[in-house]
Amino acid sequence: MTLEQQFVEHTGKMRAYQEALALLYWDLRTGAPKKGVDLRSETIGTLSSELFALSTSDAFGELLSALETEKDGLIPVMRRSVEESRKEYDLSKKIPPEEYKEFVVLQSKAESVWEDAKAAGDFSMFEPYLEKLVATTKKMIGYWGEKNGSAYNTLLDQYEPGMTTEILDKVFGELRERIIALVQKIADSEHKPQTSFLFGQFPKEAQRDFSYEILGQLGYDFEAGRLDETVHPFMTNINRKDIRVTTKYDEKDFRTAVFGTIHECGHALYEQNLGEELSGLPVETGASMGIHESQSLFFENFVGRNDKFWNKNFELLKQYAPEQFKGIEVADYWRAINESKPSLIRIEADELTYALHIMIRYELEKGLFNGDLEVKDLPRLWNDKYEEYLGIRPSNDAEGVLQDVHWAGASFGYFPSYALGYIYAAQFKNAMLKDLPDYDELLEQGDVTPIREWLTENIHKHGAVKKPLEILQDATGEGLNAEHLASYLEQKYTKIYQLN
Amino acid sequence: MTLEQQFVEHTGKMRAYQEALALLYWDLRTGAPKKGVDLRSETIGTLSSELFALSTSDAFGELLSALETEKDGLIPVMRRSVEESRKEYDLSKKIPPEEYKEFVVLQSKAESVWEDAKAAGDFSMFEPYLEKLVATTKKMIGYWGEKNGSAYNTLLDQYEPGMTTEILDKVFGELRERIIALVQKIADSEHKPQTSFLFGQFPKEAQRDFSYEILGQLGYDFEAGRLDETVHPFMTNINRKDIRVTTKYDEKDFRTAVFGTIHECGHALYEQNLGEELSGLPVETGASMGIHESQSLFFENFVGRNDKFWNKNFELLKQYAPEQFKGIEVADYWRAINESKPSLIRIEADELTYALHIMIRYELEKGLFNGDLEVKDLPRLWNDKYEEYLGIRPSNDAEGVLQDVHWAGASFGYFPSYALGYIYAAQFKNAMLKDLPDYDELLEQGDVTPIREWLTENIHKHGAVKKPLEILQDATGEGLNAEHLASYLEQKYTKIYQLN
Repeated sequence: MTLEQQFVEHTGKMRAYQEALALLYWDLRTGAPKKGVDLRSETIGTLSSELFALSTSDAFGELLSALETEKDGLIPVMRRSVEESRKEYDLSKKIPPEEYKEFVVLQSKAESVWEDAKAAGDFSMFEPYLEKLVATTKKMIGYWGEKNGSAYNTLLDQYEPGMTTEILDKVFGELRERIIALVQKIADSEHKPQTSFLFGQFPKEAQRDFSYEILGQLGYDFEAGRLDETVHPFMTNINRKDIRVTTKYDEKDFRTAVFGTIHECGHALYEQNLGEELSGLPVETGASMGIHESQSLFFENFVGRNDKFWNKNFELLKQYAPEQFKGIEVADYWRAINESKPSLIRIEADELTYALHIMIRYELEKGLFNGDLEVKDLPRLWNDKYEEYLGIRPSNDAEGVLQDVHWAGASFGYFPSYALGYIYAAQFKNAMLKDLPDYDELLEQGDVTPIREWLTENIHKHGAVKKPLEILQDATGEGLNAEHLASYLEQKYTKIYQLN
Repeated sequence: MTLEQQFVEHTGKMRAYQEALALLYWDLRTGAPKKGVDLRSETIGTLSSELFALSTSDAFGELLSALETEKDGLIPVMRRSVEESRKEYDLSKKIPPEEYKEFVVLQSKAESVWEDAKAAGDFSMFEPYLEKLVATTKKMIGYWGEKNGSAYNTLLDQYEPGMTTEILDKVFGELRERIIALVQKIADSEHKPQTSFLFGQFPKEAQRDFSYEILGQLGYDFEAGRLDETVHPFMTNINRKDIRVTTKYDEKDFRTAVFGTIHECGHALYEQNLGEELSGLPVETGASMGIHESQSLFFENFVGRNDKFWNKNFELLKQYAPEQFKGIEVADYWRAINESKPSLIRIEADELTYALHIMIRYELEKGLFNGDLEVKDLPRLWNDKYEEYLGIRPSNDAEGVLQDVHWAGASFGYFPSYALGYIYAAQFKNAMLKDLPDYDELLEQGDVTPIREWLTENIHKHGAVKKPLEILQDATGEGLNAEHLASYLEQKYTKIYQLN
């Protein structure tokens, strides 16, 4: 066997473990019975530990070293695969295997406890687990060594290579200022959309059927995926031909399911359209969390909240809930779904205030890892910041600090990717308009294909062969730039609220 | 670590792989997307191969040998666990790992092809896979060495230790004679039940809701399991606190779902009630396929087809399909669901003719492995035998030789367990009546608990600590005896058809 063949065989074996683990997690979050959770956690621990052993084996290390000596002779997908594997290898190799296994078991149990704590609205149930998660993550940072000068930068770099609190403080600062200015103008506007018709009794089955319709229209391939119900919606890559989405049905507010489904569909389209030549290699994945989020947010906001999209689809929606939308015009419907109003739940937040939710989480995480913030203080600080930025205060932990699953999975440093995804998405939209000036007409005709193909051509098909900023530069001709998002928001909300 | 601790650690690791594999299979059969099947098969192949390596490792072999030298000092559950592991070890150790992996991949692909072939009603699509499955199984028998004098006996022994074609030919011969005599009397009877009201348009959702009701009533623990839809219903042990059942909804014939669900529930109750002291050990499983089947058939026939059970539940059923059962009396309903009539599909066969379906499969398998029967001749021979024993002939392969999944999974030698389960179940029922003379009244009151507890006490809790014939002897005071089943059938059908 050539070195490349050995590499493909080894990473193929790792892929098998990844598929099993993805399914074990998917199942836990879509209906696995409660009493089996403890044993399931052990199983996840055992298999993660085996995968960890494979990805940090001396044999794999030697294989990587051998491939690196003939780097120049490798084709680009293989060269980048070796680079990515080396990065992961070095990151993992520094953690003692036993501690890694315990950490995975802890995460799995913490997710289950978090679900109960959220149901009970009681942070104290989750607190000891979160404390352990933070302490263990700090210990891991000790093993890895600090990157870019701080503990939290080490975490940021794992999700978005090169990202630092210095960059984020600046970009988020600019955005925050312009968003808060808009939020205040909107609060003062006398032209607020009517929204009462949004809140009806939209049967779960009808929401599910509509979700299937929209997924089909956006080009989601149901022969290579499925839709299920969960508590906190997610997309998961079981294998490259099995890309699953999940959603949540709120019968009193159909928007949770509709925009949640479109969001996860954006993630899924990325994974369903990765280049065939990446098949079975480590680069057969998204370029970064931020780029991934740019795809979900592109579909959620630039497709799902576009007025022309609803010119096409409002009549369809009406068929599923005829009573609820009787006598409502599409223009009023569009203004209603774009209402901006400070709210408590991130995943239900509007396009404008969403980034403020992210900034709060970012500041708390930064405090936990770079400052002296303690886990026990989180509920109070969380609530204080919501009051400061959004002018509202959670009345319990379920609608406050317990709302997101991320911390239960120790995904510290992940949240900023959501806001970065926003900024990237606005940049992609701006560039796309040069190639597809009839963007709005395409949505009005229900023909999303050219839009999806543009994204596939510029983003999806490259997987992780290109790095995030390379993708951005090649697709848009510029670097990270918050201006496009800020001016898009200003134009849109000026129109909706007739600001001046 | 003591030897026992090492053993528990090793078998615990094997259990993690078993959980992952069980879930990967469950998912394939309850809704995994089509395009992901090829990669899924590879994943199953890789993990099965890893599990195989664990269960045949030299280290495990040495551990077993070491434990065997101090056998007398082990507690019974541990001693029997070591015995079972040794049996499996010796069985597996003789197969070259690479061939084992190919065999598993073949089975996984064959199951998928079988589904397509069945949908198309075309045996020729499945034929090359079945040929490979038979040839490979024969090769495996070559590695194992023949047991009890013939190739097919080697397979029988794996599902039901000690079982041979000599025993089966005799027991099946006796039963066949008495069943065929009854079938002929029934055909001549002028007192046939009215059954037209059984075939309506019973909505899938209502069938599902009724299935949930019945599962709850029988004591199925939904916090340690779930119910899903599939093509060929099965029960699966994901982990000891996650015991899943599946069913199939036929809107034109609700009996498929109702009796299928009760059948799988019987299997599930066995697994949900294994003794806690077996936890994590290899004996935490059913004693044999036949004993397992005795539990599903006990619930399907001695509970689900009992007249007093329906005195309790017919009104409930009516609530789910009021139009269909309007004006029908429970006595007529009970006669209708116990109609005996030669039919083509095993899983829809009635209590009386069921064993004939098994005998046909048994004879074909015996011919494939001990005789000169060829795979290409199966459809014709299958149809001929149905004509001979049941007087009816399948019009296509979907309702003939393609109806069961078992051969696609290379489970040759498994079918006879179904008929054995029947015989065991009738013996258990007979013994149970001595302890619970008010058996019928309990069912009439909807109080299945004492019945389930008797089964748990005498069968479930022992797992594989006792061997099949030990369980039978301890619970009933006798050995294998077809008389109880034969006379039960004679009494029941004499009543229903007013035979003389």
